[in-house]
Amino acid sequence: MIPTIDHIQAASERVQPYTHKTPVLSSSQINEISGAEVYFKCENFQKTGAFKMRGAINAILQLTDEQKAAGVVTHSSGNFAQALSLAAKNLGVKAYIVMPSNAPDVKKKAVAGYGGIITETEPTIEAREDSATHIQNTAGATFIHPSNDINVILGQGTAAVELLQEHQDLEYVFTPVGGGGLIAGTALAVSYFGHNCKTIGGEPITVDDAYRSLRSGKIETNTTGNTIADGLRTNLGDKNFPIIKELVSEIIRVEEEEIIAAMQLVWERMKIIIEPSSAVPFAALLKNKDQFQNRKVGIVVSGGNVDVTQTPF
Amino acid sequence: MIPTIDHIQAASERVQPYTHKTPVLSSSQINEISGAEVYFKCENFQKTGAFKMRGAINAILQLTDEQKAAGVVTHSSGNFAQALSLAAKNLGVKAYIVMPSNAPDVKKKAVAGYGGIITETEPTIEAREDSATHIQNTAGATFIHPSNDINVILGQGTAAVELLQEHQDLEYVFTPVGGGGLIAGTALAVSYFGHNCKTIGGEPITVDDAYRSLRSGKIETNTTGNTIADGLRTNLGDKNFPIIKELVSEIIRVEEEEIIAAMQLVWERMKIIIEPSSAVPFAALLKNKDQFQNRKVGIVVSGGNVDVTQTPF
Repeated sequence: MIPTIDHIQAASERVQPYTHKTPVLSSSQINEISGAEVYFKCENFQKTGAFKMRGAINAILQLTDEQKAAGVVTHSSGNFAQALSLAAKNLGVKAYIVMPSNAPDVKKKAVAGYGGIITETEPTIEAREDSATHIQNTAGATFIHPSNDINVILGQGTAAVELLQEHQDLEYVFTPVGGGGLIAGTALAVSYFGHNCKTIGGEPITVDDAYRSLRSGKIETNTTGNTIADGLRTNLGDKNFPIIKELVSEIIRVEEEEIIAAMQLVWERMKIIIEPSSAVPFAALLKNKDQFQNRKVGIVVSGGNVDVTQTPF
Repeated sequence: MIPTIDHIQAASERVQPYTHKTPVLSSSQINEISGAEVYFKCENFQKTGAFKMRGAINAILQLTDEQKAAGVVTHSSGNFAQALSLAAKNLGVKAYIVMPSNAPDVKKKAVAGYGGIITETEPTIEAREDSATHIQNTAGATFIHPSNDINVILGQGTAAVELLQEHQDLEYVFTPVGGGGLIAGTALAVSYFGHNCKTIGGEPITVDDAYRSLRSGKIETNTTGNTIADGLRTNLGDKNFPIIKELVSEIIRVEEEEIIAAMQLVWERMKIIIEPSSAVPFAALLKNKDQFQNRKVGIVVSGGNVDVTQTPF
């Protein structure tokens, strides 16, 4: 079941009081380099520094009062952990966050800073799923998946809704592809609010599960997580894959050095801090430059949470 | 003679078609850390990556057709060289840029990229002044000083005009103090468009010529240029000092490590790239935190031209 225009419209209205309407930036230098007319939707300026806040807010707001009283739980070591913590805090809800014990200290501190209640586990998928299930069973908390949850997907799509409200004539909207929540939500927004507009994913070639999934027609997985785009190592899920299969036009795969070069270009020319995952769709645009000459292209800049003391260039 | 409200109003209208109306960004984390309500006017997103474009455009637009036909000349190795080159190019005017032979290659390339005609000289003040005078005499070009020129000063003030249009109730506007063009123009904007608003300068303690000049009542100079804020090594001039003396409330001096810490904070929390000079006013705010508790403060983020591969943190 693919959500309707009413679902995404409602999500937009629902998240609006709790999120920033982030600016859309462009640069004549970037346009010259790419040959396209590019509009960056700056979710790196979103609360918690990433688009994930949108999905987290939308999901919590759909819970019953009883569910809210018992709290929410997720497992994530990335941006969704921070987003769910802050979204929950803003709504007076407890957030239980299962994190691998080897997660960087800075990420644990950020989650704790937003009021998330951290449970550390062994760094395996089994351990973190067990721990989340345990919290569901004992605290009665509602599990919210970072990307494979319809309300999360709808929330993530609201960034593209705003982008298309501001630039109605976009011909393409690019996003990175990780767990699939952002691209599925974006594809919904594009299909309902775009005019002859296509959704395109950018994916690191080393973790090209989504690219392979679109080819085979079933969810493929990655055998390594060997990419600088640490937000994109996860696989698609049964809730977002049907949407992606139906509505995403193409996934363009990029090499690691292309990601780093695109990231550096954006830092230097746009003067904004974007994380490696956010550079992937722009790298994809540059890679297939000829295909997008003189086209109007939107890019959802997914986030800016990066250690500025450890740049890859 | 201090320019009138009509002068700065006219400058605002004059530069508007040739410059970006840059966004004003804020961050709840920055507000928490500083205790103030801070609004960053993002001139790092301005054309050529700095506010200097405003003064350059305003100055060239005031020339006669005859003067425009003969071109403009300046000596600068910094942001003004790029700004004058692009401003001139946009207006179909030749720009002669005198640069020291030891200027970084990346800066020479940027100037050349914007169409500036570069003359290299020995890296002394005498050599560059001689070279500029030679170009004035031979090509008939009009000399435009990077900061000590009334039309440049008025142009630089237009950033604060926009900031105060968007946030009319600011109580303070901070800028860095280098050659004095930005702070003088800002002080004019604040005095005419602010409501009980004060202009405050931030200056590196190692090049505190403006601080000392305000104390002594005459233009003092620096004996070293030993600061990471490379845009702020220059001295005030006879055109901007009278305005600064009349209209700037205070100059707050900061240490090098305070500049670097403030710059890192802005990169990490605001997700924007600012150059060290732009971090100086924010460092000044943080240094005198108690003075600005719960106050509404604007900061002109002067530019974002920094080598992202060589961060100081």
